[in-house]
Amino acid sequence: MAVRRLVIVGGDAAGMSAASQARRLKGPDELEITAFERGHFTSYSACGIPYWAGGVVDGPDALIARTPEEHRRRGIDLRTRTEVTELDVAGQRVRARDLESGTERWHGFDGLVLATGARPVRPPIEGIDARGVYGVQTLDDGRALIDGLAKLDPAGPHRAVVIGAGYIGVEMAEALSLRGFEVTVIERAAQPMATLDPDMGALVREAMCGMGIEVVTGTEVTSLVTGPDGPDGPESAVTAVVAGEREFPAEVVVLGLGVRPETSLARAAGLPLGDSGGLLTDPAMRVRGHGNIWAGGDCVEVWDLVAGRTRHIALGTHANKHGQVIGSNVGGGYATFPGVVGTAVSKVCDLEIARTGLLEAQATAAGLQFVTATVESTSRAGYYPGARPMTVKMLAERRTGRLLGVQIVGREGAAKRVDVAAVALTARMTVDQMTALDLGYAPPFSPVWDPVLVAARKAAAAVAGGA
Amino acid sequence: MAVRRLVIVGGDAAGMSAASQARRLKGPDELEITAFERGHFTSYSACGIPYWAGGVVDGPDALIARTPEEHRRRGIDLRTRTEVTELDVAGQRVRARDLESGTERWHGFDGLVLATGARPVRPPIEGIDARGVYGVQTLDDGRALIDGLAKLDPAGPHRAVVIGAGYIGVEMAEALSLRGFEVTVIERAAQPMATLDPDMGALVREAMCGMGIEVVTGTEVTSLVTGPDGPDGPESAVTAVVAGEREFPAEVVVLGLGVRPETSLARAAGLPLGDSGGLLTDPAMRVRGHGNIWAGGDCVEVWDLVAGRTRHIALGTHANKHGQVIGSNVGGGYATFPGVVGTAVSKVCDLEIARTGLLEAQATAAGLQFVTATVESTSRAGYYPGARPMTVKMLAERRTGRLLGVQIVGREGAAKRVDVAAVALTARMTVDQMTALDLGYAPPFSPVWDPVLVAARKAAAAVAGGA
Repeated sequence: MAVRRLVIVGGDAAGMSAASQARRLKGPDELEITAFERGHFTSYSACGIPYWAGGVVDGPDALIARTPEEHRRRGIDLRTRTEVTELDVAGQRVRARDLESGTERWHGFDGLVLATGARPVRPPIEGIDARGVYGVQTLDDGRALIDGLAKLDPAGPHRAVVIGAGYIGVEMAEALSLRGFEVTVIERAAQPMATLDPDMGALVREAMCGMGIEVVTGTEVTSLVTGPDGPDGPESAVTAVVAGEREFPAEVVVLGLGVRPETSLARAAGLPLGDSGGLLTDPAMRVRGHGNIWAGGDCVEVWDLVAGRTRHIALGTHANKHGQVIGSNVGGGYATFPGVVGTAVSKVCDLEIARTGLLEAQATAAGLQFVTATVESTSRAGYYPGARPMTVKMLAERRTGRLLGVQIVGREGAAKRVDVAAVALTARMTVDQMTALDLGYAPPFSPVWDPVLVAARKAAAAVAGGA
Repeated sequence: MAVRRLVIVGGDAAGMSAASQARRLKGPDELEITAFERGHFTSYSACGIPYWAGGVVDGPDALIARTPEEHRRRGIDLRTRTEVTELDVAGQRVRARDLESGTERWHGFDGLVLATGARPVRPPIEGIDARGVYGVQTLDDGRALIDGLAKLDPAGPHRAVVIGAGYIGVEMAEALSLRGFEVTVIERAAQPMATLDPDMGALVREAMCGMGIEVVTGTEVTSLVTGPDGPDGPESAVTAVVAGEREFPAEVVVLGLGVRPETSLARAAGLPLGDSGGLLTDPAMRVRGHGNIWAGGDCVEVWDLVAGRTRHIALGTHANKHGQVIGSNVGGGYATFPGVVGTAVSKVCDLEIARTGLLEAQATAAGLQFVTATVESTSRAGYYPGARPMTVKMLAERRTGRLLGVQIVGREGAAKRVDVAAVALTARMTVDQMTALDLGYAPPFSPVWDPVLVAARKAAAAVAGGA
């Protein structure tokens, strides 16, 4: 049945892509679209916040793909600073609170999109709410961080602690480093980048230390120390981080512990959630069992095509795809999101980090047995100027040889090579099939055997030699 | 039946990869390997010659992966400056001439590898054999060019004409430009890079002109003008190139008209050749109908997985793969080369050029109907420093939506994106399937929709909207 009154909760990538795509297919006469966004901004690149913080890009305007005003001009009734506080599924309505005035009202819908995003993990420790402690999930978070950094005494010490060494953690470490901070990253696991196997994470650690970033691993943060907020102010500004046996002085603390799906609204309404708390949908991005409620972006679990299970992966590129799919379906078309293979790329200074598919631990958890192959190669022909080393690790299923995952750590030209493996995973290729892939070769772009092919050859040999 | 006396004709990529791989599997007691090479060098990167000529890399040593002496130390009887002049298939022997002494002898084999490479096309025009006219196919060619350039009067004019605007032509145009030459490229077709569709070739032309390289298209070279070879020498040095109505003064002329398979030996011996004159093999790289003769590298035709026909594609990366496959089979293992999808990447100064799959004309010739989509995008998030524009053109089969080809012209970060399409072609994906590919995204590496995905979306829409 055609949707005529669409309500969207959340005004970033998934929500506003859905709105835009639906509007492209149906004009205001056929479809009314109302979107609620808690913050000030819409359709922005949260992934760009570390680069804004590092002074690499200007913000916040450059990070905004489309402003609330631009959405409104396209016939979308967009309400910023408006929080949806309750979802009444049976009554087909949401209650929204204007955060400026405090007034609340119910809004009816016959189609709903939940795009409520994710929230950064905040460990329940003393001092976590002090001034000087920042998350970097939303553009409002980014603005708070930038404003806070600007208020620091320029003559005083500039010490920053990043809690957690995942993507956000290492990107923020680079950003703060670029701004002249002494940076310490504290991570509970044995190596940074828990999205890599520990042997590959060790390469990241080594490179970060080479950049002058202190990396403290195997250590949990237990509390934050606070001090006066001003000359005579209350004890509300962070002054140090306590972890293990040490105390790390810090004017700035950034939370890089990852995010969780923001699904309190959905949970209260009884919608189906997965193990990680993300909403469960069908391939058309409809919430399971609810024909007129769609969900996408950081608040859902996505289907992992390699492991054959759902998983929470917060990533702007998925959110945009979800929005596109939802908008098409809302607008009377047909589109599906078949799932992900777990690709992610990142950088710390000139170190490029990439992964796709399963880590060793994930493959084991999925009940798969595998072989691994790790090779060293270069980004260009060895003799060509600018050839930089890279390490490629490949996992292949035992006996069948099916590709299970690839991790790459290197310099310029390393990260995007993972895309080859992402396509191969989608096509369920074996590593033996991959050895024959016709990848682009010329000395400025690749050795005559591309690093991914070198890894595939070694992995194929391991499969063939295995029991 | 196990090979015990292997003879290899041609000491570059395919031949010596085969030798090395066979030797890895079988020691000198089990397998005798004799390799004949007409030139001075073995196992070198001919693709590196333009960069040597341009002074970007040192040569020739840097371009040599393994010297004759290194091969000999691994138990390969390698004879350089030795040309095989006759192949007696029935008698299982080759006649080889020592080019230094002029002596000839027969050598018996029970296994033979033909890796005779390719020769540059030399148009049968007046003056083509003059001094100052260079091919760049072998490392000996490269050395002759470098020596010739060094002998030019430093105070005199430095004008170069490159005949043909294919890969070698545009790479040599860059190289000579880097050495301070005024460079003119003359091409018979309407646009440079006949390996691209004309609309994409036009982008290359525009960029080359912006680099100060003169590009003359739709014009055939009809003769070369020669002058005195020295103060009192014979009229044997090139002084100008005549093309169309014009005469282009030139101290140096480079042939960039492409190459043809060097199969005169095979032809005389009655071995099966394809339309382009390349040897025809089975997937194990055995010459069709000849159980103990293998062939690989630039002298064979390869199976085109997209068009479903054989094609001559001279490329070092294929030659290396062929050698690997041949060596495995000679050594008693089993390996196959399934074919190519037609991937090639190149650059002229900072312009990156890539293609894979079929051009429009190739698709039509293969009997396929198709839609096209061309999009403009950027290498990184638009707001991230260093984001450079790129144009992506995609061909998809009408109705089925199967990907048929991709061409990319752009700047840094453009060319290797074609690898995604190369894998998708191998897996016979549709452009609709490609829209959901989980490619690496982070602002320094890609817009939130990778340019290849943007093209896939537009192509999928064209397929869906088509009749």
